[in-house]
Amino acid sequence: MNLTELRPLAEKLFDDIRALSFDGVGVTRESYGAGETATADYLRAFAAAEGLYAEPDRAANIVFRQPNAPADAVAWTGSHIDSVPQGGNFDGLAGVVAGLLCLVDRQRAGSAAASLPLEVIAFRGEESAWFGKAYMGSGALLGKLGDADLALRQRATGQTLGDAMEASGADVAAIRAGQPLADLRRVKAYLELHIEQGPVMVARELPLAVVSGIRGNVRHNRIVCRGDAQHSGVVPRWLRRDAMFAVADLIMRIDEHWRVLLERGTDLVVTTGIVGTDPAEHSISRIPGSVAFSLEARSRSQDTLEAFYQLVRAECSAVSRERGVRFEFDRRLDSDPASMDPVLCASLARACAAQGTVFDTIASGAGHDASLFANAGVPAGMLFVRNRNGSHNPHEAMEIDDFMLGVQALGATLAGIGGSHD
Amino acid sequence: MNLTELRPLAEKLFDDIRALSFDGVGVTRESYGAGETATADYLRAFAAAEGLYAEPDRAANIVFRQPNAPADAVAWTGSHIDSVPQGGNFDGLAGVVAGLLCLVDRQRAGSAAASLPLEVIAFRGEESAWFGKAYMGSGALLGKLGDADLALRQRATGQTLGDAMEASGADVAAIRAGQPLADLRRVKAYLELHIEQGPVMVARELPLAVVSGIRGNVRHNRIVCRGDAQHSGVVPRWLRRDAMFAVADLIMRIDEHWRVLLERGTDLVVTTGIVGTDPAEHSISRIPGSVAFSLEARSRSQDTLEAFYQLVRAECSAVSRERGVRFEFDRRLDSDPASMDPVLCASLARACAAQGTVFDTIASGAGHDASLFANAGVPAGMLFVRNRNGSHNPHEAMEIDDFMLGVQALGATLAGIGGSHD
Repeated sequence: MNLTELRPLAEKLFDDIRALSFDGVGVTRESYGAGETATADYLRAFAAAEGLYAEPDRAANIVFRQPNAPADAVAWTGSHIDSVPQGGNFDGLAGVVAGLLCLVDRQRAGSAAASLPLEVIAFRGEESAWFGKAYMGSGALLGKLGDADLALRQRATGQTLGDAMEASGADVAAIRAGQPLADLRRVKAYLELHIEQGPVMVARELPLAVVSGIRGNVRHNRIVCRGDAQHSGVVPRWLRRDAMFAVADLIMRIDEHWRVLLERGTDLVVTTGIVGTDPAEHSISRIPGSVAFSLEARSRSQDTLEAFYQLVRAECSAVSRERGVRFEFDRRLDSDPASMDPVLCASLARACAAQGTVFDTIASGAGHDASLFANAGVPAGMLFVRNRNGSHNPHEAMEIDDFMLGVQALGATLAGIGGSHD
Repeated sequence: MNLTELRPLAEKLFDDIRALSFDGVGVTRESYGAGETATADYLRAFAAAEGLYAEPDRAANIVFRQPNAPADAVAWTGSHIDSVPQGGNFDGLAGVVAGLLCLVDRQRAGSAAASLPLEVIAFRGEESAWFGKAYMGSGALLGKLGDADLALRQRATGQTLGDAMEASGADVAAIRAGQPLADLRRVKAYLELHIEQGPVMVARELPLAVVSGIRGNVRHNRIVCRGDAQHSGVVPRWLRRDAMFAVADLIMRIDEHWRVLLERGTDLVVTTGIVGTDPAEHSISRIPGSVAFSLEARSRSQDTLEAFYQLVRAECSAVSRERGVRFEFDRRLDSDPASMDPVLCASLARACAAQGTVFDTIASGAGHDASLFANAGVPAGMLFVRNRNGSHNPHEAMEIDDFMLGVQALGATLAGIGGSHD
């Protein structure tokens, strides 16, 4: 196996797909829309030319495999082929191309007898940007989409998700019935290569990273802190009930707990993405009577999320007592963390080490199709490739050198999956 | 002198003027408009019936005095007769009624020979609610209104301030020329009784308070904190440049400095009335890239304002360094504090003590006509009367018992102004 020789092929695939989905600024590959379908068609033609089998599954995702390979026990690898509007070329596509290179390598070389047969999945509909929901392609495969999901409308065209999936060839009746469309018992492992969407690997000079788990989150879309709106000049500090000072106090208490938890090695990020005094009443010379804000905590650990959430609620009570305000909470929203399989993590780490690539193990803050398979009982693993400038923007910048290191580690890990996962 | 016997007269004046300016919710006495003029006309008729002289000055404020009183050296007392829309009956009017009761008392009893002659001024145009500018009546008298001010338009009618003043009988040509319309050298003292607009006196059970000074302020209408907008899930704490956490940090540093300064006896209030993430970019799952906020500090002391402002700027620098953000400031706006005359403050305090009224000395956070006279070199003093529910709303609630204690203290203080201020 000499995957590094496939570097020109990787460049050609990225360049061709960038060209066919370029929108003038970045790439646009709409979930169940033109850009995504053009990408799927291109990849199917490419696979056929390589002598590979490529057909849609019942949820309209594309499955690639070697012809006549046994199918009773397989390893899966892949990622998604859609993008956000004016997005980057590598978010999702990198994992599909990586899987295809591994498959092409096997096809050209002949299968290694000791490895499980490989299937590469190009998922549709991973990005929530189009229908307001993520993991549509993998979710459909797992029987996790319902009527309410299928009634969601595309942000630009207004088409429903059900109609868009149907037009892409999905078995919408089965999906609507919540019927699982794949037999996961035959899938012994799910591996996904993906660009890192944060800045950690660039900052720490890591070309590759093994993903330990995918963070879950706990959220409130809207918490309102209510104080007392009064003339700013006439109310002394001890008689104020300033909603903004109260929220600032709360945020700093949260920040301090967060800092201490990180020192203990806890995995946690906390964000108040939306904060504001009430435009209907605010004035430079008025003490804010109410402030609305969002709160999101993410962690790989469900226990951390729960404990931190209770800490936040306790601090809200303390701030309420000390500053004479009250906090009103909307519905708490939870999303479960997913753990990657320790055996697969160890295999990925061994592969990185064996090829001499600097790496570390980090958590994924963003969500991925892999989390659904992990939570459905399929041993899952993820490999991150260093990427500059974040994702969901046209400036994402993965180096092909780093990508090829990732392909090599992915291929080695897949080649090693045999007896232990049978 | 037995001013307490005039309590029924006070009640009648308040009731009658409330009735003629009632708007269905509160009172509306538009600056240089119908409600204010009706109030002026009512008071002039009342004064004439009491045998008092009542005529407008050249700025259309109404001046009341005893007929044939010497005018070469006088004491002034008064306040304003306009109100905000749907305002309360006592904000401003209380000081005019208090002065008139003192004048009626002298007229009925015969002047006390040892006292300076008294003139009561009913100012027009004190509230900024109508033309976006405060102290128009007293400012015009002092030659402080310019072309830009006279071009301001009334919020409801669109009439210019110049036209509205002209229609009320003011000498707008002289006002436009910035000509002082009163000879302040003959005014030996300006005393103003006013309801408290904050909650301190109710909280501390003080029927009366001597005002030590009127707070000035330093403001920024808009400071923008710029960080880096990133995916909330993928950027760890040490790589974040979260504009909201930075602003919360700044506010808590300000709050802590404020708390410490108060313990040292410094006069200060601090408010961030408007705070918000950028609606064009904010999202629950995005680290805020920018937060805009207003900042206002008020103090009786110019030195405190300057020192505190520099402290805020230093903390902005510290937060910038520690959190990787930067702060952009719009134009700094300053309004000078005014000190009340110590001799008048002592006289007011002696009068309160002599009549057995519990009182203390406090600063006025809101602005008053008295600040203009103080800064123009006229010895000025103010007496606050306890008032529930703040001001600028129909729920303000001054007790007539408290008001009569104020009238008594005001009358005694005015009676004591003789030789020492000649």
